[in-house]
Amino acid sequence: MSSCLIEADGGGLVDLVVPETSRDGKIKEAELMPKIHLSKIDLEWVHVMSEGWASPLKGFMREEEYLQSLHFNSLRMKNGSLVNMSLPIVLAIDHRSKHTIGASTNVALLAPDDANIVAILRSIQIYKHNKQERIARTWGTTSPGLPYVDEVITPAGDWLIGGDLEVLQPVKYNDGLDHYRLSPQQLRHEFHLRQADAVFAFQLRNPLHNGHALLINHTRRTLLEMGYKNPLLLLHPLGGFTKADDIPLDVRMEQHIKVLEDGVLDPQTTIVAIFPSPMHYAGPTEVQWHAKARINAGANFYIVGRDPAGMGHPTEKRDLYDPDHGKKVLSMAPGLEKLNILPFRVAAYDTIAKKMAFFDPTRAQDFLFISGTKMRNYARNGENPPDGFMCPGGWEVLVTYYKSLQAQEAEPKAAVLTT
Amino acid sequence: MSSCLIEADGGGLVDLVVPETSRDGKIKEAELMPKIHLSKIDLEWVHVMSEGWASPLKGFMREEEYLQSLHFNSLRMKNGSLVNMSLPIVLAIDHRSKHTIGASTNVALLAPDDANIVAILRSIQIYKHNKQERIARTWGTTSPGLPYVDEVITPAGDWLIGGDLEVLQPVKYNDGLDHYRLSPQQLRHEFHLRQADAVFAFQLRNPLHNGHALLINHTRRTLLEMGYKNPLLLLHPLGGFTKADDIPLDVRMEQHIKVLEDGVLDPQTTIVAIFPSPMHYAGPTEVQWHAKARINAGANFYIVGRDPAGMGHPTEKRDLYDPDHGKKVLSMAPGLEKLNILPFRVAAYDTIAKKMAFFDPTRAQDFLFISGTKMRNYARNGENPPDGFMCPGGWEVLVTYYKSLQAQEAEPKAAVLTT
Repeated sequence: MSSCLIEADGGGLVDLVVPETSRDGKIKEAELMPKIHLSKIDLEWVHVMSEGWASPLKGFMREEEYLQSLHFNSLRMKNGSLVNMSLPIVLAIDHRSKHTIGASTNVALLAPDDANIVAILRSIQIYKHNKQERIARTWGTTSPGLPYVDEVITPAGDWLIGGDLEVLQPVKYNDGLDHYRLSPQQLRHEFHLRQADAVFAFQLRNPLHNGHALLINHTRRTLLEMGYKNPLLLLHPLGGFTKADDIPLDVRMEQHIKVLEDGVLDPQTTIVAIFPSPMHYAGPTEVQWHAKARINAGANFYIVGRDPAGMGHPTEKRDLYDPDHGKKVLSMAPGLEKLNILPFRVAAYDTIAKKMAFFDPTRAQDFLFISGTKMRNYARNGENPPDGFMCPGGWEVLVTYYKSLQAQEAEPKAAVLTT
Repeated sequence: MSSCLIEADGGGLVDLVVPETSRDGKIKEAELMPKIHLSKIDLEWVHVMSEGWASPLKGFMREEEYLQSLHFNSLRMKNGSLVNMSLPIVLAIDHRSKHTIGASTNVALLAPDDANIVAILRSIQIYKHNKQERIARTWGTTSPGLPYVDEVITPAGDWLIGGDLEVLQPVKYNDGLDHYRLSPQQLRHEFHLRQADAVFAFQLRNPLHNGHALLINHTRRTLLEMGYKNPLLLLHPLGGFTKADDIPLDVRMEQHIKVLEDGVLDPQTTIVAIFPSPMHYAGPTEVQWHAKARINAGANFYIVGRDPAGMGHPTEKRDLYDPDHGKKVLSMAPGLEKLNILPFRVAAYDTIAKKMAFFDPTRAQDFLFISGTKMRNYARNGENPPDGFMCPGGWEVLVTYYKSLQAQEAEPKAAVLTT
């Protein structure tokens, strides 16, 4: 298998989960340390780092790593090479926590429900959290209404704490989907078992329609034509924080499974797994992270679409990012030189052939573009999209989800009426 | 001389000024091209690029260069190496100019007074100017009141035009200071003539006081102790756009010359020249540009101070940048690995010794910090700073300048009173 893994200093991915044999001792030690309360999204980052998705990062960023990420989207290794690191992976604390920590060099990280100590952060460094600068340099805007900013950064403390992470036990969500949360190490093992000679990753946070399937199957054919004998698809939906109007992970997973059952994608050459990262919606900056993490998991081809990790501008009537910038920035990003980027051909609904097809500009009038918003509107209103847009089983999942949403929305109103 | 020059693709600095023999032909050719009107600051950038300060950049950035500068603060060369390029060097045009250019592949650039064609931009590319994103990623804020933004970006057009620059004749200002505007090539030649074995650059945009002199002389001694036989100082005031309350270039140059005449710095081991770049006040992002340009001119040591290229936050009561970030970012910047950074020791007025001295924290109460604002206030009010803060000749220049300012300010008021 020809892969282009970013190697950590010592070779191989970092694995920050402590061995079971030393766990009890570490927990006892941690109980004596100052405690930091993790939010749900902080814990997602602990999960991400613990498995090596962000390798060679060994814990929440110290200031040197933070500044390099913010200014250069990459970290310099001791041997002089650069690894890509486009998003700051940081832990914010408030003045009170900083005061509590005092001169301690290690802290214990508590689960969001405070039930147990999740991890130790060692040899800590505390430095200022300039939120305005972080937001401006990460998103290229400081407009109000950025989902990750509103959820994570604005309510966060004015200090960042970095250090080396020791995770006391693997992070689990107990939501019935943990078996889809394969670590980079597990994915590499799986690719090896299946004797893949190429792995192409497809990041998604939306339901999969036949346009995606067309693209994926086309990519597979291209790889076969290039001489690969057994290219595998890593269908890799994002599992962490997403904005309120995105479709939740459990519904998306159910939809993806239906698509595979319906034979739109070939289960024999597909691995479905969950990518545990939270979503930033930071366009060209974030797409680098999406690609880099998949390289760490053994992918060597990455499919990049129009406006990856983008969204509408929160206050202006335009896309937040130039839809072509993601692809361009990714292709030039430091530390990703060896990544094979597969351009995303635009698929649309061909009203003549009555199926999703690659857009043909010579007969543009025959094509119908069905955006995510339009798709959600169809499903919300119980309307059917044009035949051939999505397999019926997959579509049914979405319709059921929106029906359940409407039922939920109706309930509190009814309650208000009766009180 | 051991230097660490960033070499352009073909080796050596780019020189974008056309030879005299082909000038007339080029002018005739340019007269037939669509015309773009340069602002005063656009012309400063033409000057900067024409002499190779921004080498290997060959003209105003095309989109690939712009995106790399914005996201990575560096450009990848064909051989895979990175050169530092932290500020976007771009030319903005409006819709009307874009329309006028149409399908032309080359354009002529007109001097700000429209008197003559300054340069040709060849093989042009026109792309969108997303001002908000450019500002956020360059300054780490989008607050109103950033001097370069207010002066240059806000009034600019919504398109950027990149291409290869051919400068038809060297840019001159005819302000009596052109003989101080030495090109990187001329500076290298001068260093060679003087048999310098180390060149340390000192960027400044303020009057030079004895604290600076202390630092410079200390640096020279350090270099001698390191084994260099003939270290030269490149005293390199910035000559392009500065904000309204900064002291103008002609006054600063007069002040610098007085300081040399008064023997505070040694003229034998100092070269005074003007760095033609405009000022962004973009802190850690800009300090990389300041250092990189001086490397191109043959400097191999760069003195970096507290809060380089920084300013107060335009709307909040704090420094815009963490005063230590400039030094930290510079020390990790891609493409500047070989740069020798000399940390700036903090000098302050020692009220016991009655002179500028390196700050001694064990007797902090003895030291007086005289900020740029405080210094300007002394001069404005005709007060003398403490003895030993600045040589008398240099101080006199500042007092005279502020008196002339007050006279100017008084005049229009008097006029109003008499009409």
